[in-house]
Amino acid sequence: MTDKAAKRARFEAAWPHIRDELIAYLSTLGMPAEAIEWYRENLNYNVPGGKLNRGMAVVDTAEILKGVALDDDEYSKAAVLGWSAELLQALFLVTDDIMDTAITRRGQPCWYRAPGIGMKAINDAMMLESGIFFLLKKHFRNQPYYVDLLELFQDTAYRTGMGQLIDLITAPQDEVNLSKFSLDRYRLIVISKTAYYSFYLPVALAMHISGVPASYMLGDQTVEPYKVALSILLPLGEYCQIQDDFLDLVAPPECSWCVNTALALATPEQRSVLDENYGRKDAAAEARVKEVFEAVGLREHYAKYEADVYQRLVEMIAGISEGGELTLKREIFTSFLDKIHKRTM
Amino acid sequence: MTDKAAKRARFEAAWPHIRDELIAYLSTLGMPAEAIEWYRENLNYNVPGGKLNRGMAVVDTAEILKGVALDDDEYSKAAVLGWSAELLQALFLVTDDIMDTAITRRGQPCWYRAPGIGMKAINDAMMLESGIFFLLKKHFRNQPYYVDLLELFQDTAYRTGMGQLIDLITAPQDEVNLSKFSLDRYRLIVISKTAYYSFYLPVALAMHISGVPASYMLGDQTVEPYKVALSILLPLGEYCQIQDDFLDLVAPPECSWCVNTALALATPEQRSVLDENYGRKDAAAEARVKEVFEAVGLREHYAKYEADVYQRLVEMIAGISEGGELTLKREIFTSFLDKIHKRTM
Repeated sequence: MTDKAAKRARFEAAWPHIRDELIAYLSTLGMPAEAIEWYRENLNYNVPGGKLNRGMAVVDTAEILKGVALDDDEYSKAAVLGWSAELLQALFLVTDDIMDTAITRRGQPCWYRAPGIGMKAINDAMMLESGIFFLLKKHFRNQPYYVDLLELFQDTAYRTGMGQLIDLITAPQDEVNLSKFSLDRYRLIVISKTAYYSFYLPVALAMHISGVPASYMLGDQTVEPYKVALSILLPLGEYCQIQDDFLDLVAPPECSWCVNTALALATPEQRSVLDENYGRKDAAAEARVKEVFEAVGLREHYAKYEADVYQRLVEMIAGISEGGELTLKREIFTSFLDKIHKRTM
Repeated sequence: MTDKAAKRARFEAAWPHIRDELIAYLSTLGMPAEAIEWYRENLNYNVPGGKLNRGMAVVDTAEILKGVALDDDEYSKAAVLGWSAELLQALFLVTDDIMDTAITRRGQPCWYRAPGIGMKAINDAMMLESGIFFLLKKHFRNQPYYVDLLELFQDTAYRTGMGQLIDLITAPQDEVNLSKFSLDRYRLIVISKTAYYSFYLPVALAMHISGVPASYMLGDQTVEPYKVALSILLPLGEYCQIQDDFLDLVAPPECSWCVNTALALATPEQRSVLDENYGRKDAAAEARVKEVFEAVGLREHYAKYEADVYQRLVEMIAGISEGGELTLKREIFTSFLDKIHKRTM
């Protein structure tokens, strides 16, 4: 087993115990067996089974901050927060799939399309969210950073909701109107809807349990490490999404980097082709859109964007002053950046 | 203007300022005007316009605990929490209406049926919830009871979600199966789904801002005032819901006190009539159900239930030891009980 596979296996092994804590709480409250079984199925179906990038980023970051392997208690705390980040992800996926009328997710029917579920999925999503706060209370109530964890999850949910709202009104399911699109709008959607919860949340969670304070002195300089982390992780998250869109060039999501960049570069004629063909689900229209993408030089623009953002992120990370204990470490960010840079799938 | 109308008017006057705080936050984050307008409409459409019982109960309870009128700062704090309770109610109504495929709410189309909304209502509900935690952070972050408020809202949302789950699987929209019904099941649904957030939440919020501690000594007795409040407010909430069901005897909600009591009392023949007719939307079936309700003596049973529960609640309230400052007061509970007892609409 590779090191990476072993890490994943250890993280996955923590899940059944965390899930059972959630289920046991319903038992102690006297909920009927049928409701407990329903919740178990909701958890099993929606929480594990993804890439677990967010959850494992909590554990990885905590390990980098400590510098040596976590002890069992530290690992257990990081895993609870990692799975809490996955619970948040699960509730976003369950509700997004309803709003997007999606069909499948992770190779199975979306939860709301599973037999007998339907719109009950909305309540199920809310119970996934409540599970996060139950876990935080159970495992962290006596920690000085407990309130920081609560606020971090709540702030993140709010930001993500705002991003989802902008996305929903910019690129509604039933009509694509390119006049609403722009690279600025795209960037705001990606940062709000994805970068906060996928990049900043896991790192900030790990920083809190590792005891990283809100600010500290390094020489005669005041460092605000959460702000530093945010300033790097938001553009990093944006980079990752732009890369996703580009790798998916043929069929990118509706309000994608590809179409927004093409709109910024298109001649009036090319713009007409996009207006007439973008968002249509037939192969001929998609081919015409792709021709415009190629004609405006999207590949070259992507290569330039990637070189620029990589350089900028490398410089930002190099600018982090590493000091004694409980300060930021550059490796937190380089480990993300290395995973993303020049990724081809 | 009656005293009650004046109280309501004052509470309603606090809303525009609270709503504008929520909206202003999106502006400071650079959200586009279209998204800000959308959120304003979400808030305007879904939060005010109800009976405001929950919101005003926060203010009323805080006033009873203080014994004299609240000063402006105290009123403002109570009003923020009162409107936060109304935000919670709003998000439950928006999501319940989707799950129940309801048509109208408070005399207008349900939000998900309003023009251009649809399933975006799910994200809107999540943004109503996030608004609660934004308000708590903005107004209470420096208070020693801040974490208690966060937990109270989160615990309440979890309990309500559990109640909604049991209700959804006991009385699904598409089929009524009376073999799943029982008075015990009914009671668990009502307490979980309604009594927590409608009765306990407002009182406990007011207790926190009034400085009521988790426990105190009265003579040689340890009092746990939140547990005392819960022990009275859950049966009180149940009584209120049973009364609602009974007042709506002709067309009570599907898993109602009426049908559950009738099931407990019915002969095999009456049971067959219920099995065949209950939950059907035609007048003849409803008339047959009502005949069984009358034949089993539902009115007499209700009268006996009401007399019993009233007596029990009066005794529980009389059992509260009132002491010096910051202790429970009987009037908190009698004011609720007086509003409910012998209510005819």
